[in-house]
Amino acid sequence: MALIVQKYGGTSVGSVERIHRVAERVVQARQAGHDLVVVLSAMSGETDRLVRLAHEVTPCPDEREMDMLLSTGERVAIALLAMDLRGRGINARSFTGRQVGIITDSSHTKARIARVTAERIREALAGGIIPIVAGFQGINERSDVTTLGRGGSDLTAVAVAAALKADRCIIYTDVDGVYTADPNIVPSARRLDKVSYEEMLELASLGAKILQSRSVEFAARHGVPVEVRSSFKEGQGTLVTTEDMDMERVVVSGVTGDRHQAKITIIGVPDRPGIAARIFGPVAEANIIVDMIIQNVSQAELTDISFTVPRVDLGKAVTLVQRVAKEIEAKSVGVTDAIAKVSLVGVGMRSHSGVAARMFAVLSREGVNIMMISTSEIKISCVIDEKYLELAMRALHAAFGLDEASGREE
Amino acid sequence: MALIVQKYGGTSVGSVERIHRVAERVVQARQAGHDLVVVLSAMSGETDRLVRLAHEVTPCPDEREMDMLLSTGERVAIALLAMDLRGRGINARSFTGRQVGIITDSSHTKARIARVTAERIREALAGGIIPIVAGFQGINERSDVTTLGRGGSDLTAVAVAAALKADRCIIYTDVDGVYTADPNIVPSARRLDKVSYEEMLELASLGAKILQSRSVEFAARHGVPVEVRSSFKEGQGTLVTTEDMDMERVVVSGVTGDRHQAKITIIGVPDRPGIAARIFGPVAEANIIVDMIIQNVSQAELTDISFTVPRVDLGKAVTLVQRVAKEIEAKSVGVTDAIAKVSLVGVGMRSHSGVAARMFAVLSREGVNIMMISTSEIKISCVIDEKYLELAMRALHAAFGLDEASGREE
Repeated sequence: MALIVQKYGGTSVGSVERIHRVAERVVQARQAGHDLVVVLSAMSGETDRLVRLAHEVTPCPDEREMDMLLSTGERVAIALLAMDLRGRGINARSFTGRQVGIITDSSHTKARIARVTAERIREALAGGIIPIVAGFQGINERSDVTTLGRGGSDLTAVAVAAALKADRCIIYTDVDGVYTADPNIVPSARRLDKVSYEEMLELASLGAKILQSRSVEFAARHGVPVEVRSSFKEGQGTLVTTEDMDMERVVVSGVTGDRHQAKITIIGVPDRPGIAARIFGPVAEANIIVDMIIQNVSQAELTDISFTVPRVDLGKAVTLVQRVAKEIEAKSVGVTDAIAKVSLVGVGMRSHSGVAARMFAVLSREGVNIMMISTSEIKISCVIDEKYLELAMRALHAAFGLDEASGREE
Repeated sequence: MALIVQKYGGTSVGSVERIHRVAERVVQARQAGHDLVVVLSAMSGETDRLVRLAHEVTPCPDEREMDMLLSTGERVAIALLAMDLRGRGINARSFTGRQVGIITDSSHTKARIARVTAERIREALAGGIIPIVAGFQGINERSDVTTLGRGGSDLTAVAVAAALKADRCIIYTDVDGVYTADPNIVPSARRLDKVSYEEMLELASLGAKILQSRSVEFAARHGVPVEVRSSFKEGQGTLVTTEDMDMERVVVSGVTGDRHQAKITIIGVPDRPGIAARIFGPVAEANIIVDMIIQNVSQAELTDISFTVPRVDLGKAVTLVQRVAKEIEAKSVGVTDAIAKVSLVGVGMRSHSGVAARMFAVLSREGVNIMMISTSEIKISCVIDEKYLELAMRALHAAFGLDEASGREE
């Protein structure tokens, strides 16, 4: 008998019919003899409806009031599931973020969890009651409602699991786990049975939308085993957990592609100390995240500097950079958003050398030019021409043995 | 400069457009130099939507969960108005029932207010902030959300006004005050400038839907002056307050009609002690409220007993009464729902004699037969044939001088 935290997202509770299905799943887990805590998001569409209402009322809604407004969505969901379960004779009870004791700072709309008391949850569990917990919300020290921002309900689930020292936190979502690559791009992609927190973090920061970085970090810090599973079909998902021997045997766990970057090149920059600060200072002040930077070898005391920024910030960044370019008397500014980033992720890279060289060889064999490179301990990313992204992903997926049922699977 | 509690009902905040209008009214009151607390109901339609959802989920929703669900409606409304006001540069803040400190018993869906701490409201007012308070909700000692039942938001407004010793509690609604009679039936009906708590209580119990008895009782007990005003047009409403000299000068303040009663007659009842208990015991046990009872003079040791019950309970009542009639060997049971109750209300009756006699004379002159009579200190009610109700109301309205602009108005 284990203590399990189950979390269901908005689409999983998006209609009365789907709430019934969640209730059935809860009953099953209970019958299997587990102690259960259920965390819910708002019914899909509800948060959007409320945001729309707020913006109809006023163009820039106050953030504390926004939290008061949005936190109602999860309350509706937990009340409905709790009454569904009680209607089936199951002793369930809904609890708000406040009642669970999710204490956050006061950064409304993107609050950080300070601590989770979970007193009433422990009490409920001891009394044989299934607590149904509102995700996404907490209260600050002043007892005002706060919300945790995007992916907040996952974070609630992980934080509650950590506070209760639960055996597992299962995130039910619309995919059935973490894949070696996006199956829409790489049809031979396989679901991973296990992935390490570190790999999951890299995957999240590379744009895999399954779990947000914050939730993975929280789980890693507290050692909460998190499983990602489909709420629409039966079967195992992917377990996100501490790195183990099995994982290290595999060099690469996944291939990701990211089209949300754009490249800016400043041509003919006088190669003087302090130039980089002059360029990147204003960009950072404008809250634009620069991902990769490359500087060519200087020729005749002039150099070219290229860097990538999120595509949505491109316009703002170009305006800033053009002003700086003029000031520092650079020759010109070139821009392209027809780039993409392809990355390999795997904890095995720590113990296997030559991964980067193999990656470059594969791309070269396919005729793909590499514009920029960045590496971390367990990741290598290359910026390439956007039109080659699918080709590069498929070639790398095959070359690193991810196509066949190999290594990782037991 | 006065401290005023304003309460707006569901139709008054039923759309973004109407929320804007409420915000404008708040700004006006503020500019007039008043300290303000605003209490809101849920946007009209929202509570019905949530109730429908609950009943789609399960036929008999758990009441604690129902409160968790329904209390979200008011939260949406207060967040929207607070952000509207803040968008206009007005320092407003939303507060839930819990944050206001509305502590109730644990009778979910119909909780009674135990006390109101209003700590954060006082704090907000001291800081120049306009508190926007969620009506209809509180928390019990266990910190679970409760709701106050029908008319609960009015009760919140009156209770907050009492806790703050506010100068006035203004209930904005879709009518502009309390009338001498229903203007749909009596076109010459006039709005009353003032009415006493006692009269308002009688009017509420007679079916006037402007203020519920609970709110009037609470206001009377704490001496809160309550004004009923239209949220759609400007101008004065009706002030519900302590009885004063002006009121006593007028004999009758209002005429009401009630079609929601039905009459049951048991014919040929053996006139023995204990018979009434045999009849009315089972009716009371079935939670059916008997309004009037009349017993004919006994003839040959047999008597007829007539009484009225709410029309909705008629079927249930008849079944019970037929069983008892058989047991006590009464002759037969007669039933009619073609009756109506016409009533006169006025604190002036205390000091003016002969009101009843005059009422009977008026009805008689119009050829209206009186079936039953009941009186209280400030009310006389007659049960008559339903088809004469409008006629009787108009005749009484005219006969007691309510048609002209008389007495009550200054």
